[in-house]
This record gives sequence, C-alpha cells and structure tokens, in this order.
Amino acid sequence: MTGFNITPLNSSLEPALTEKINLKTKPLGALGKLEKLALQIGKIQNTLSPVLTKPTIVVFAGDHGIAREGVSPFPQEVTWQMVYNFLQGGAGINVFARQHQIVIKVVDAGVNYTFAPHPDLIDLKVAPGTQSYLHSPAMSAAECDTAISRAAVLVEQLHKEGCNVIGFGEMGIGNTSSAAMLMSLLCNLPLEQCIGRGTGLDDKGLEKKKAILSEAMRTQAPADKSPLEILRTFGGFEVAMICGAMLKAAELKMVLLVDGFITTAALLVASALHPAILDYCVFAHQSNEQGHQQLLAYLKADPLLHLGMRLGEGTGAAVAYPVVQSAVAFLNEMASFASAGVSNKD
Amino acid sequence: MTGFNITPLNSSLEPALTEKINLKTKPLGALGKLEKLALQIGKIQNTLSPVLTKPTIVVFAGDHGIAREGVSPFPQEVTWQMVYNFLQGGAGINVFARQHQIVIKVVDAGVNYTFAPHPDLIDLKVAPGTQSYLHSPAMSAAECDTAISRAAVLVEQLHKEGCNVIGFGEMGIGNTSSAAMLMSLLCNLPLEQCIGRGTGLDDKGLEKKKAILSEAMRTQAPADKSPLEILRTFGGFEVAMICGAMLKAAELKMVLLVDGFITTAALLVASALHPAILDYCVFAHQSNEQGHQQLLAYLKADPLLHLGMRLGEGTGAAVAYPVVQSAVAFLNEMASFASAGVSNKD
Repeated sequence: MTGFNITPLNSSLEPALTEKINLKTKPLGALGKLEKLALQIGKIQNTLSPVLTKPTIVVFAGDHGIAREGVSPFPQEVTWQMVYNFLQGGAGINVFARQHQIVIKVVDAGVNYTFAPHPDLIDLKVAPGTQSYLHSPAMSAAECDTAISRAAVLVEQLHKEGCNVIGFGEMGIGNTSSAAMLMSLLCNLPLEQCIGRGTGLDDKGLEKKKAILSEAMRTQAPADKSPLEILRTFGGFEVAMICGAMLKAAELKMVLLVDGFITTAALLVASALHPAILDYCVFAHQSNEQGHQQLLAYLKADPLLHLGMRLGEGTGAAVAYPVVQSAVAFLNEMASFASAGVSNKD
Repeated sequence: MTGFNITPLNSSLEPALTEKINLKTKPLGALGKLEKLALQIGKIQNTLSPVLTKPTIVVFAGDHGIAREGVSPFPQEVTWQMVYNFLQGGAGINVFARQHQIVIKVVDAGVNYTFAPHPDLIDLKVAPGTQSYLHSPAMSAAECDTAISRAAVLVEQLHKEGCNVIGFGEMGIGNTSSAAMLMSLLCNLPLEQCIGRGTGLDDKGLEKKKAILSEAMRTQAPADKSPLEILRTFGGFEVAMICGAMLKAAELKMVLLVDGFITTAALLVASALHPAILDYCVFAHQSNEQGHQQLLAYLKADPLLHLGMRLGEGTGAAVAYPVVQSAVAFLNEMASFASAGVSNKD
C-alpha cells in the first residue's frame, strides 16, 4: 500500500508562471494567497494556463467501534441517517456543492447499516464498522489495505471521467477520536492537545472522551509505529479510504482540497508514507475543532479560510472552492500591463 | 448630507432565525461565521428566507491632487488607464465579478482625464481630480456634497432595478493616502500607524509619503473635526462617493459588502455620521495594507477572508461573495433534523 508513485512538483515553469502573475494589471503581490495558489496549480498541471475540471468531493462514511464507548454526544445511527441526508441533497455539503457545481459522490466505506441499493450510493463497504480500539485494533491489516485500495480505484475512475480537482468529505460518529489518536502518534504530541469537543461535547463529555482515548492509547498503541500500523489500529474505514484516495489523486497529479480535522489526519498518514503528496494539497479551511490548527502547523499548511466551521462532510473544501477558482481565473483572464495599455510602476 | 434615514436592525425575527439555524442537520454552531452571517442577513431583510438579488459592485474612480506630490510609485495616468481596463473586462475585479455573476458598474467620480462617452461608463464626474491637500482642502464643501448625492442617486437606481447586495470598489492613484488621513483623524490614531506602502512603495518612498502626509496634517487639518469636514479636506471624490453610496444602501436596507482600506475608510466617515450603518455591513476581506487591521478593529469588524490581498477595485468583496451566498444557501436549503429524519444530540 505504499505503492503509489507520487513525484514532487516539476518547477521548470515556475519562472514563467511567476512572470505571468507579476505582469498582470495589479501591484506586485497584490493578490496575496491567490498568487501562491495560481503558481501551485500551474506547477501541478505543468502549464501556464491551468484549468479545473469536474470538481468532485467524495464523502466517505464509516462507523467506529469506539463510538459505543461514549465518545460522542450523537448516537451512532446518525452516520447512516446522514448518508440518507447526503443522498437526498439536504446536508451542508450538498448545499455548498450545488452552489459551486461540485459533483458529490457518497461512499459507504463501512457504515454499521445495511443500505438498500441506491443509484447514488457507492458501496465500498469493508465491514459494518470498525472494532472498538479500546479493546483491539480498529481494523485488520487486510481491511485497512482493502479500504485504501478501493478508494484508490474510485479516484482513478473519477480521474478517467475528467476530474482533476478533488475534495474529501467524511461522516462517522466518533471519528474525531480516531483523528486525535493518529495525530498524537504521528505528530508525537500529547493526546490531550489533540482531543476536542467534536460534534459538541460538554466539559463532562470531553473528560470522558479523554479518559477513554488515554486508556486506548495505553493499551492498544502498536509497537510498530509505522503509519499504516497506526492507521489500522486507531483509524476508521472512511479515514483509511480518504488516505488511499489522496494518495491516488496525488499520483494522478490532481489538485487535492484538504479541509477539516479528520481529512487532515488522513493526509497526515498519507504524507508520512509519501511526503511529496503535500505539493498537491490546497488547504481549504482551518476547523474550529481543537487540534486542527496544530495539525496544520505540523504540515506547514496555510489554509485559505478561517470561518470557524467544524461540520466535516468536506464542507470546508466546498466553501473554499470558489477561492481556488479565483486563483485560476485571474491567471487565465486578467490583462497584463502591456495588453491593457496601463503604465507599470516607475 | 446627514439626511439619510438609517434604522438599526429589527431583531424581532432573531429567535426564529436562530432556531431555524440551530435545527439544521449539523452540530450546534458548526457553520461558524456562516451562521452569524445568515442571522445578520435574515435580520437585514427581516425574513427567515433571505435572498440575494442582482449583486452589484460599483467601482468609483477618482484622481487625487496629492498624487502629484509623489505619494505613489505609480503615475496618476494609471487611474484613467485602469478605467479603460475595467471597461474592457481585463482587471481583477472583472475576472472575479464574472466568476460570480456580479454586475460591475464603473463610475467616473472625478478622474483627471476626459473620457469619450462609453455605454458602460457612468459619468458622475465632480471635477478632474481633487486639489492637493498639501496646500488646500481636497474638495469644497459643495463638491463633497455633490459626490455624496450623486452616488446616493445611483444606488437608489440600482436598488430600483432589483439589487439588494452591493459592494464598493475604488481606483485612484494616491487614495491610500486619503484613507490614512481619514483614519488618523476619525479613529484618533497616530498618522504613522495609518500609513502603508499602498501599491508598493519601497522604504524610501514610504518615508516620503509619511513626510508629505505629516506636513499636510500639520498645515491643513480642519479646526472643525466633523466627519464631513474631514472628508472634504483629505478625501477623494471616489471616497466621498463610496460614503454616499453606502449611506443610501443602508437606508434602503441592502446588504453592504465592505472590503479594503479605502472602502473601509469611506465607511468610517459614513458610520461617524450614522452609526447604525454598521448593522448592514458584511466585512469581506482584511487587506494587507498597513492600517486596515486596526481600522477594522476600530469598527469592531470581523472580516470573512484574510487572503493577503491589497488590490482594491472591490476585489475583496467579489472574492468573498460566494461565502455570503453560502450563508444564505444553507439557511434556505439545508434539511432540519426533523425533515431529514436524523437523530439530534442526546
């Protein structure tokens, strides 16, 4: 599963891209982060005139054995109920995706529910939820591999259909717990700093979550600290699938939109396996979930938006997408000083 | 010119709006600033189902006598050249407005150039540029009044045509100097803190700008510290027009998109005249221009975006507009726990 061929960005066009950006009718650097983004996307696509095609957000849903221990204020059934909400178009991610003509794909990565077949539900279910990692690893190595592979195949299919920019959503009651465990182990940070209120734990609930996760860390942390071993022990099926989807997307030189706490934790695993993946990542939004800011800092990420959101589902990627489009649009459409007949700086 | 009738927001719908927001299928507060925005726009329009119609950005261009003293690295002719760039669709604001189907109106507020008639150029010219306030007030009281009134009439027209959300762009070589003078006097802050590099002054240029503006402040600051007297002394025609446009827009209960340093300085004058105007303002973007952060703090404004832009033209408002649309979209389109059959928090 480390068999992805991810190459660092080719920088041969950087001088020409920089010149193109600098000669637009604006003071030097006056478009701030949009200029950095235009440069990055130009390099990813290795062209002076990048285009974004068939933007897609894949929402992976999975259930977590740990949810049964009481780490979330919402019951586990909310995972499958929200899958129906996605399929009916009523969730936040549906609203923002419709707004920006982003295609949504909903994937059953491992929900603890038997869905009736539905034309818009992609069934990649590995198992009906992970094991509770209070007692055993969340997944077997084979299950973790399966999750990564199935997601990679899906991304390859989307790429074949013309998608070159992709975001990753998730739904899974209990998955901020998984993300906190991965973050603590892979960033080598105290677990306490990585645990937040998730969907809205009160103080008592937060203390309970910390106690449960500390106990899991004490008893289940693998001796083998490899990224995949950590992922299978404390991850979720949707987290492993996001990891696999990201790795394949970077291999295919797509633009990756990375938003919230769980998605960034999946990237943390992916980047531990293949550091060059970070070249392909646009960090969309900094979540209000405790830990996300530090996780982004660990990855040296500078997110586009800080809207105080913490909904998951890929909503941060969707809301940020027009900003990404703006970067490409100014690079392609703005006049230069010469073409517009505007005097440049003395 | 203080004859605008701006009423504070009616809060009678606030409980119902808050309930509508809280019952959406998401953890409480999980859409962060989008929730605050949805509440504000619902109150502005006094409805549980707000709509944004005919979004428009009016770009006001004007020349500044002070530009002849050497406060900008760009020559004054760039003002009229950029007006042509706006009319030809090649400027940054054109690109972002096209992206979001925002109508652009280009106004000659007082450019030092005689334009041939053009179907898309609105001629509200007060005079071919202001006087240099190193030597005398920039405008007469009558000129300042004219600028405010003409812009107010334009906004009334746009509103009649169906626009209920409006942004304000500006173009005018030398106008960060005006904004710094207004900010210093109206916020009672040292001029030094209000002066920045504008379109890209180097250290030497910045020192010169500071020396010129300090001298202007020493010799021309009006004894009468009323907002309008300060505006006519150190403002520009485009700044006065933005002020008038904003006042009329708030009177008409439109949503005001406020972005950069110059636009916010115009709002500073408007809010000194009518503090209730702030209820109608959505702060779109924090500019990288020195002073803007402090100016926003003075107005207790919490901008949506921090993209490090400093281009003017209304580009911050344009790039932020989809986020404003997202706030309205989730309020209108997202399912509730009940409608989606999703279990709420225990």
